[in-house]
Amino acid sequence: MTSSRDDAAARDVDGIARPARFALPDGVVYLDGNSLGPPPRGVVERIHAVAADEWRDGLIGSWNDADWVGLPGRTAARIAPLVGAAPGDVAVADSTSVNLFKLVGAALVARRGRTTVVVEDGGFPTDTYVARGLAGLRGLGEVRVVATADLVDEVARPDVAVVVLAHVDYRSGRRHDVDAVTAAAHSGGAWVLWDLSHSAGALDVDLAGWGADLAVGCTYKFLNGGPGAPGWLWVHPDHAPDLRNPVAGWFGHARPFDFADEYVPAPGAARFAAGTPGILGLAAVHEALAVFGDVTPGELDAAARSLTSYAIELVEARCAGLGLEIASPRDPAHRGAQVSLRHPEAYAVVQALIARGVVGDHRPPDVVRLGFAPRYIRHVDVWDAVEALRDVLTSQAHRAPEFRRQRTVI
Amino acid sequence: MTSSRDDAAARDVDGIARPARFALPDGVVYLDGNSLGPPPRGVVERIHAVAADEWRDGLIGSWNDADWVGLPGRTAARIAPLVGAAPGDVAVADSTSVNLFKLVGAALVARRGRTTVVVEDGGFPTDTYVARGLAGLRGLGEVRVVATADLVDEVARPDVAVVVLAHVDYRSGRRHDVDAVTAAAHSGGAWVLWDLSHSAGALDVDLAGWGADLAVGCTYKFLNGGPGAPGWLWVHPDHAPDLRNPVAGWFGHARPFDFADEYVPAPGAARFAAGTPGILGLAAVHEALAVFGDVTPGELDAAARSLTSYAIELVEARCAGLGLEIASPRDPAHRGAQVSLRHPEAYAVVQALIARGVVGDHRPPDVVRLGFAPRYIRHVDVWDAVEALRDVLTSQAHRAPEFRRQRTVI
Repeated sequence: MTSSRDDAAARDVDGIARPARFALPDGVVYLDGNSLGPPPRGVVERIHAVAADEWRDGLIGSWNDADWVGLPGRTAARIAPLVGAAPGDVAVADSTSVNLFKLVGAALVARRGRTTVVVEDGGFPTDTYVARGLAGLRGLGEVRVVATADLVDEVARPDVAVVVLAHVDYRSGRRHDVDAVTAAAHSGGAWVLWDLSHSAGALDVDLAGWGADLAVGCTYKFLNGGPGAPGWLWVHPDHAPDLRNPVAGWFGHARPFDFADEYVPAPGAARFAAGTPGILGLAAVHEALAVFGDVTPGELDAAARSLTSYAIELVEARCAGLGLEIASPRDPAHRGAQVSLRHPEAYAVVQALIARGVVGDHRPPDVVRLGFAPRYIRHVDVWDAVEALRDVLTSQAHRAPEFRRQRTVI
Repeated sequence: MTSSRDDAAARDVDGIARPARFALPDGVVYLDGNSLGPPPRGVVERIHAVAADEWRDGLIGSWNDADWVGLPGRTAARIAPLVGAAPGDVAVADSTSVNLFKLVGAALVARRGRTTVVVEDGGFPTDTYVARGLAGLRGLGEVRVVATADLVDEVARPDVAVVVLAHVDYRSGRRHDVDAVTAAAHSGGAWVLWDLSHSAGALDVDLAGWGADLAVGCTYKFLNGGPGAPGWLWVHPDHAPDLRNPVAGWFGHARPFDFADEYVPAPGAARFAAGTPGILGLAAVHEALAVFGDVTPGELDAAARSLTSYAIELVEARCAGLGLEIASPRDPAHRGAQVSLRHPEAYAVVQALIARGVVGDHRPPDVVRLGFAPRYIRHVDVWDAVEALRDVLTSQAHRAPEFRRQRTVI
């Protein structure tokens, strides 16, 4: 039954949602954690302590005394269990774009004779931009854009060095069949690189178990690290020794403080660091990750499936005939922690929802995108959100002039 | 005369030092602003406001409402006047290492037929690492390491695409003769890329006037942006249209929020942004730059020359016979805002000075490195620092066991 808020609340009993651990504004149902997660409690205070106690008062000494030097590694160690990885196979550095560039560049150099990077048609644009930018470097490789339906065939071709795929599509929320893609790619000898920006912290990510080769992800969506917080990357331990970071900055050096002339890469994934790490952003991520200390990726995934299935069920039951179309897969195994709805006035609908405290986002041209972060979203929030959506569409509140002025939207 | 603190104080009358604008701990003479600058007053508070008001309370809406989207451009506009640049020719993004990679990579692609990157023997290691990492990408170019004495000849060779030079040497503080190097490079058709990490905010940097081609720099030294704050870069406006950012992330796109399949580079230097900007770090830099609002690069340079000349004069007068050797050039035109002193027990001397509140740093093997940031260091601070140095060496305080335990030092 989907007929009451009490029913929703019953589904939350014994759940893993802990909204009290997050500093969310009162009255807000925040379904945009797949764009920018909210700070867990304690993170704002931790940022202040880093700025005041460590930078202002500790000055240069904090590189040692506050272990800023060790902060990237300590942060990687907190991400590792959320993505099925050993700590030494994860690095936290730079942005997702830069990390993608480094790993794809390293793979192209290491995989001599294989010069093709496969990307998915309609995939996250920046992944394609970065791959093309790399290929634009004289003679390094070429990018092949492949339709989703052709992926399993195309990734098995013998010229493919690496396949770059977003595990979850940012627009539709579709989740790839990891096993099928991996088996196909490996059958032809290609490597698979997963962009887990929309997965880590919300889904069952198991890089070692998947037999993946490389991965990148951001920390500011479901990992709640803050706006533009540093990205992370993962390298299969068997590959790491053969991979050279093309952006060979000093923090990827085995002993950066020797100021040696020769570049000696750090062991494992740490070689893919580059410049001096941004401490404010890193400290925020490190602190934020503490909210995942008592939950497994499998539990997050089960909760995400339940929340998104419930959202679809409610939209169909409560918003029938109101012009919405479910744009995400029906099978939760093929869906991320996200439900996308098509509506011809999607932008205005999102603005009207925000005015009612239900925060989702719009993706062009016609998508209302709702993210369900299983660590702070409950089934009652899903109920409230769908009721707000029903109210907006029934009352045509979204047709008010103030909801039509389009601004930059991230 | 160099014989008294009163004399030092007399030199500070009408100076540009404004230590009251900085949140420096009491009793500290901070001569490590060339490694990590201190926060100007208001910066710690600004960071807190970004974390609390903008991220926690404003959530995703702050990309628009707090103009996070415009923050990189607003920060670039504050750096521009400090480096003799127009705002649109400066971008703030990523780390110095990543920015160097992007610009050298773009230059190698643009300058077809020229495949050599010249770097200086003994230059900042990461600059060489990055250039070599780029060259390691299949067939992109090669790195030629050139002795300082041979630079003017070597940079004029017809195969040179770009010359990468640190304006100020991190170890000795030697400042390059910009006009001579530029004229030589341009005579052969090479471009010049300056690493201004040790210059911007302390010296007379005039990129347009110099006829430079490209530049990078960090913001956490003399620009006081905070630990690991984002780097900046500059592109000559005549070159920008021909240069493609190899790390083509979405923030370098002309219209990133269109999520278009085709990459259309932003105009000017902004095309060299890549991933989502780190807002906490950027906001700190932006706020910190306000302390330079009423000073010119020429005034900073004059003050730096006066401070460093005075430091050398005092060391020679007050520390004669104590085992120190001046490792920086005597001519202030050939010296940055830094004085390096050689001492066989340099590490322990630095530690003993720190224990007395005089914070410099050590660079292997035997350099005591003292940075003089003209916005907060006064001649009286130079006096106090040299007196502390004299006291340490005279009393042999640096020989205490606690100053000999070497730790990681950044």
